[in-house]
Amino acid sequence: MTLGVATGNASYTEKVQSVRSRLEASIPSSLRLPSSILGSLPLDVTGIPDSCGLLTSSELAITELDATTICQRIASGDITAVDAVSAFGKRAAIAHQLTACLTDYFLDEGIAQARELDEYYKREGRVVGPLHVTNVIIDIKDHIPIKGRWASGGFLSNLELSKEDCDMTSILRRLGAVFYVKTNQPQGIMTAECSSFYGRTLNPHNSNLSPGGSSGGEGALIAMKGSCIGVGTDIGGSIRGPSACCGIYGIRPTSLTMPTHKYVSYQPGHDGIHALSSSKPYLLDPTLIPISFDLPDLSQRKLHVGVMMHDQSVMPYPPMLRAIHLAKEKLSAAPNIEVVDYQPYNHALGYALAYEVYMEDGAKTYRKMLKDGGEDILPLGEWAIGEHLVKDHDAIGMWQLHDKCNSFRREYSDYWNMTGCDVVLCPPFLGTASRHDTAKYWGYTAIWNLLDYPGAVFPSGLTADPSIDVPPSSFSPMSEKDAESHQFYAEDPRLFEGAPVSLQLVAKRFNDGLLLAAQKIVEDIIRG
Amino acid sequence: MTLGVATGNASYTEKVQSVRSRLEASIPSSLRLPSSILGSLPLDVTGIPDSCGLLTSSELAITELDATTICQRIASGDITAVDAVSAFGKRAAIAHQLTACLTDYFLDEGIAQARELDEYYKREGRVVGPLHVTNVIIDIKDHIPIKGRWASGGFLSNLELSKEDCDMTSILRRLGAVFYVKTNQPQGIMTAECSSFYGRTLNPHNSNLSPGGSSGGEGALIAMKGSCIGVGTDIGGSIRGPSACCGIYGIRPTSLTMPTHKYVSYQPGHDGIHALSSSKPYLLDPTLIPISFDLPDLSQRKLHVGVMMHDQSVMPYPPMLRAIHLAKEKLSAAPNIEVVDYQPYNHALGYALAYEVYMEDGAKTYRKMLKDGGEDILPLGEWAIGEHLVKDHDAIGMWQLHDKCNSFRREYSDYWNMTGCDVVLCPPFLGTASRHDTAKYWGYTAIWNLLDYPGAVFPSGLTADPSIDVPPSSFSPMSEKDAESHQFYAEDPRLFEGAPVSLQLVAKRFNDGLLLAAQKIVEDIIRG
Repeated sequence: MTLGVATGNASYTEKVQSVRSRLEASIPSSLRLPSSILGSLPLDVTGIPDSCGLLTSSELAITELDATTICQRIASGDITAVDAVSAFGKRAAIAHQLTACLTDYFLDEGIAQARELDEYYKREGRVVGPLHVTNVIIDIKDHIPIKGRWASGGFLSNLELSKEDCDMTSILRRLGAVFYVKTNQPQGIMTAECSSFYGRTLNPHNSNLSPGGSSGGEGALIAMKGSCIGVGTDIGGSIRGPSACCGIYGIRPTSLTMPTHKYVSYQPGHDGIHALSSSKPYLLDPTLIPISFDLPDLSQRKLHVGVMMHDQSVMPYPPMLRAIHLAKEKLSAAPNIEVVDYQPYNHALGYALAYEVYMEDGAKTYRKMLKDGGEDILPLGEWAIGEHLVKDHDAIGMWQLHDKCNSFRREYSDYWNMTGCDVVLCPPFLGTASRHDTAKYWGYTAIWNLLDYPGAVFPSGLTADPSIDVPPSSFSPMSEKDAESHQFYAEDPRLFEGAPVSLQLVAKRFNDGLLLAAQKIVEDIIRG
Repeated sequence: MTLGVATGNASYTEKVQSVRSRLEASIPSSLRLPSSILGSLPLDVTGIPDSCGLLTSSELAITELDATTICQRIASGDITAVDAVSAFGKRAAIAHQLTACLTDYFLDEGIAQARELDEYYKREGRVVGPLHVTNVIIDIKDHIPIKGRWASGGFLSNLELSKEDCDMTSILRRLGAVFYVKTNQPQGIMTAECSSFYGRTLNPHNSNLSPGGSSGGEGALIAMKGSCIGVGTDIGGSIRGPSACCGIYGIRPTSLTMPTHKYVSYQPGHDGIHALSSSKPYLLDPTLIPISFDLPDLSQRKLHVGVMMHDQSVMPYPPMLRAIHLAKEKLSAAPNIEVVDYQPYNHALGYALAYEVYMEDGAKTYRKMLKDGGEDILPLGEWAIGEHLVKDHDAIGMWQLHDKCNSFRREYSDYWNMTGCDVVLCPPFLGTASRHDTAKYWGYTAIWNLLDYPGAVFPSGLTADPSIDVPPSSFSPMSEKDAESHQFYAEDPRLFEGAPVSLQLVAKRFNDGLLLAAQKIVEDIIRG
């Protein structure tokens, strides 16, 4: 298989060269990895920030902390915001050289922003805004505008310098967040991959593999600890997929609860499927819904956890099956858990509906964006828009499609209610991260987008082990997709060695608080 | 002008005859008005139930009560549910003979349902369900299914016997509501009129005038006190318009908060604009949003009331201008109110967007439904689908339209926030009820549908008085619509004599509780 590399006509090539030079030049020479390291990289590059000698031990220590702890340390005066952004900024530069995860790097701005916060802290004796979110050092996905930085909707043709913050970054900035990098996404932000005109992002755990997508740059950066938290988007798995592939935590909340106004998109007004609550963003954005994300107390009752082994459409790979079986065993033994055998309700139909909604215009806009930029389509994009579900709809066709989606949502909701599950544990993806350009099925996340059920992804604690995770000797595919997908793993399981295996927990729409409370309990049992 | 009367081909005529005979036959002969009354009806028929002699004094007394009081009287054992539904049922039969407001009449079923509730009360010593909604006698708009009764989407071609209750009626039934009638709506439920294959509903206060639409049958029935409360729908003013025209109370809550699953519609999946909260309908219907309608305490602060005289697009008629000026005067004198001069923010654009969204398919489905039933289009429908804003959209066109709507919503929300208003008081309609088939502008309600701001309509206490409400001697129209609309009143103000003048209060999206609390305060001042 030829790996897709973004190419185009002469004008495209010239512009892309300048875009990449701009990015390249933004990494200071003091943070360049020596050719001795770059010349002989291991498959797993996550250890290089530690060993390369470019970071001090205190910088390394800071980047090992999670976002909450960093906020607390800054609030208590243990470290400064400048310390924090400097450490993550340095590590991000290294991460980028190893995985091509960034699209914009502006540490100087981040340091200047952090300095102001530190001065405020010195003067006022307290941090800006509420403790739990203030002064967080945060990376931002490319298509989410930050004033004065570059943003794109995944095509060269919609690359633009952002004149203003969007709501999301404006609210975060007001709460004391510090920006310093933006992260890569695939062409058109459409596939579960991460290759764009900026280049191809690699999975830090195993460069044979993709970081997933679309928020793949963010997944790789956070797995490299070049950031402790990031903001992405997810209309089919674009946060949960890369989180699973990179072995980090990710959550997609109920849609229309987060401020997405002015995100760069080539399909504005497309609202068939969507993806910072304490700041009441709904006061600003009239499309948002004022839902509380308060965590319920689950300590006084049994938690009913559905466990779904597979979606009856495409079978997960051996490492994933091992993880989910083990999780089920542990949950079954826990006194505070009632395990329910969760059978999927027509996930094949749900996935087909979601897929049809993605490009209701028959991908006409997608093709136009490519053409406008002189950009060639990448192989996975070509496959994606070639699927038989991609067709041009008129108004009546769209109404009918949305009506089918609503009927399915109702049937599914009735079904879920009948099972009595609080939450469902399931694979987030077929296995670990995929080999590059082979991610042709994202039904394990997209089904929940169609239903608008919030989902959280977390590491199972396991990694792929080809000596245990052996493909079945006989395999009866459940569908055509299943047959094709089976090959991607069975051909050579050794390629996946060491890749993290993640799990997904979902709850019904608007039960985001329940989901987060349950996720803590479930993860503690599974990893305990 | 020729009044539109539903006609069609031979098959249509035959079927409609049978539909109307079925309705006619359902009114028992004991409740027929004598020809001495029917032969010489006054324009205002609201006094006839009192004078016709068909209702006992205790039945009349019951029908003078409001819904809350009736529930309380039943709960305290003062009256039975059978008493209540019998009284309203009798009065509804009379109302129908005077205004043609019904599409289905099934008092026997209502009495049987009420008898069961009374037996429960006798046995258990308490009413079914929570006090404040239980045992309410309630009328239902035609397109909302009740098991075993007829329902239609306003066309003969989608008339059907309902096999099941929809969510709305099922929830209400569970809470102890009693059904006994269904109410008329216009062809295709599309115009601010009320003429369908069932016939033309008349305004009880003045038969020269329309009851408004689309929930016009309900407006007429409640104004006749043949019902104390009803359930309708409102995507452009279809609850608030008829409420205003008939001088009753009406509320359109924030959309996606009420259970509308399985309502009969010829455009299912059309969700550009949408229209029993304590029962948590969102647990059943996955498209709904779990919003609390709790009323805030407004006693400790000044209420900021914007007053909008007109929408800068089409000028209200003299009776409405008189009512809104008087309201402003009274509010300005109230110590607990801060009056804000509210200037509309581009309502012409908002109305145009709403209108374009209504029939995104260029009215193809509307025409098909007519054709399928052999039904001729009514004059107002012909005008409505002939407007230049009605055009067929493809997927890209729909995305662009929805994007324009979202941009407008954002601009409007920013503007409203800047004014600091809690609520805005404005006309619900151009004047009083319109002459038949002349309701060609519903921008005073539809703008709030586009924005999804909840609105409540209530009587101002005034009625049209041609001796005071004189058309201006010189009139400079603000738009073409304004010029046309002006004529409908100026031609002959005497036609509107005695028609009630109503007002509308609106709040921002999801502020339904605030709206209801503020409405009580504002109405008390205006009518005090």
